[in-house]
Amino acid sequence: MKLLKDIMKNQLSENASVLIIGNEILSGRTIDKNFNFIASKLNEHGISISESRTVSDNEQEIINAINELRKKYNYVFTTGGIGPTHDDVTAESISKAFNVELEINEEAYKILEDYYKELGSEFNDVRQRMARIPKGASLIKNDISAAPGFNIENVYVFAGIPKVMRFMLHEALKTIDKKDKVINSTIQVSAPEGEIAKILEKTVKENTDVNIGSYPFFNTENDYGVKIEISSLNKDSLNKAINDLKVYLSKESINYS
Amino acid sequence: MKLLKDIMKNQLSENASVLIIGNEILSGRTIDKNFNFIASKLNEHGISISESRTVSDNEQEIINAINELRKKYNYVFTTGGIGPTHDDVTAESISKAFNVELEINEEAYKILEDYYKELGSEFNDVRQRMARIPKGASLIKNDISAAPGFNIENVYVFAGIPKVMRFMLHEALKTIDKKDKVINSTIQVSAPEGEIAKILEKTVKENTDVNIGSYPFFNTENDYGVKIEISSLNKDSLNKAINDLKVYLSKESINYS
Repeated sequence: MKLLKDIMKNQLSENASVLIIGNEILSGRTIDKNFNFIASKLNEHGISISESRTVSDNEQEIINAINELRKKYNYVFTTGGIGPTHDDVTAESISKAFNVELEINEEAYKILEDYYKELGSEFNDVRQRMARIPKGASLIKNDISAAPGFNIENVYVFAGIPKVMRFMLHEALKTIDKKDKVINSTIQVSAPEGEIAKILEKTVKENTDVNIGSYPFFNTENDYGVKIEISSLNKDSLNKAINDLKVYLSKESINYS
Repeated sequence: MKLLKDIMKNQLSENASVLIIGNEILSGRTIDKNFNFIASKLNEHGISISESRTVSDNEQEIINAINELRKKYNYVFTTGGIGPTHDDVTAESISKAFNVELEINEEAYKILEDYYKELGSEFNDVRQRMARIPKGASLIKNDISAAPGFNIENVYVFAGIPKVMRFMLHEALKTIDKKDKVINSTIQVSAPEGEIAKILEKTVKENTDVNIGSYPFFNTENDYGVKIEISSLNKDSLNKAINDLKVYLSKESINYS
């Protein structure tokens, strides 16, 4: 098992973590809509997520998580906490994590000033807070509501509002080279997990450069089974593993689709 | 800000973390359906979640997360990885985290043996894996698919399948005393966040035993605003803060509902 996971880790060229920031997610009042979208887009880009965390709008918690994750993974993507209100503490926390000044970024200030001028709204001091960016960071564009995200070293800081986050992720990915993509395939089996576990183990042992996941489902008493996910960086390896698996399932007269 | 968060932390009698275990969530192939349900149920029970993590089906990652979270929070609830297949490594990881033996639990063995007998299915050696429980843990009942979860010290280990997880959570909460419940209320404002930030800050400063969160939304160009969430352990404090907020909003002619 351990060997398989290690092999899988070596196989993937780049890994990432996601840090979701927000009391509203932890309290259950809001359902996070960002993580799954980020995971899918990163996968398409050849980056796999190894860990995700959700923490509260608390400076020390954010600092600790950022400093742990940015050392452990190639990329860290954060969502939430970059608005103008008292509970938006992400920019401040990140600058403390990197031990750099949080300064009024001239470019961000200009973007926000122009935006509120065009809207006919006051560019008041709380809105000016959104121009505070850690020193040395580069801005991530936001065509939805102007206030930019930012990137410092391997950390990418996005808004929490899904529409804005999606725009920022798209912008950020323009600056990150595409990696070799993990390809995967699914086989669905109409048998309980306990009847195919040995077959899976045999396939895993014989196919060292694929990763095989087994995900049981129980919809109704008659609609249950297992989704088997097979993934690899190498197409031939993937196809060989799929073929092996199908042969072993057929030998035991287990139906698959 | 920091003061407010600290006050809020003292206010809440018990905190918890959730550890979601599964490659299928991290890869984006499966959307987690458990976290939000657990958060809501724990809130009703008077327990608030301070942090959530999602890690892969990797023994060392699970051990590290468990050992960090169980020391930091009153409770840890895990989902996933207790089935019969090669990638189900949760029970093994937890026993290593607690440095106790993973043994065949007689009660769990009997439950599973009876279950498969009744089903007319073979209770084979991979299914017997599901009877392996860390020494000293107590079982958590599973009336859906028999294989039990377990509780060891402050860690509660549930299945990942939502229907089974829900049953186990319900069972586990029977064994945990109800705490004082955090009560909360929402006010929706049809104004951008930047126009109410000062009002929020004033209300926060004047109401030290409430927590106020500000969550902007942009549905369409004409349908945007902020949801303000006010929570407290004390009903009078909550009502006073709500009243203050409404007075300040009215003074600035900002509509709310």
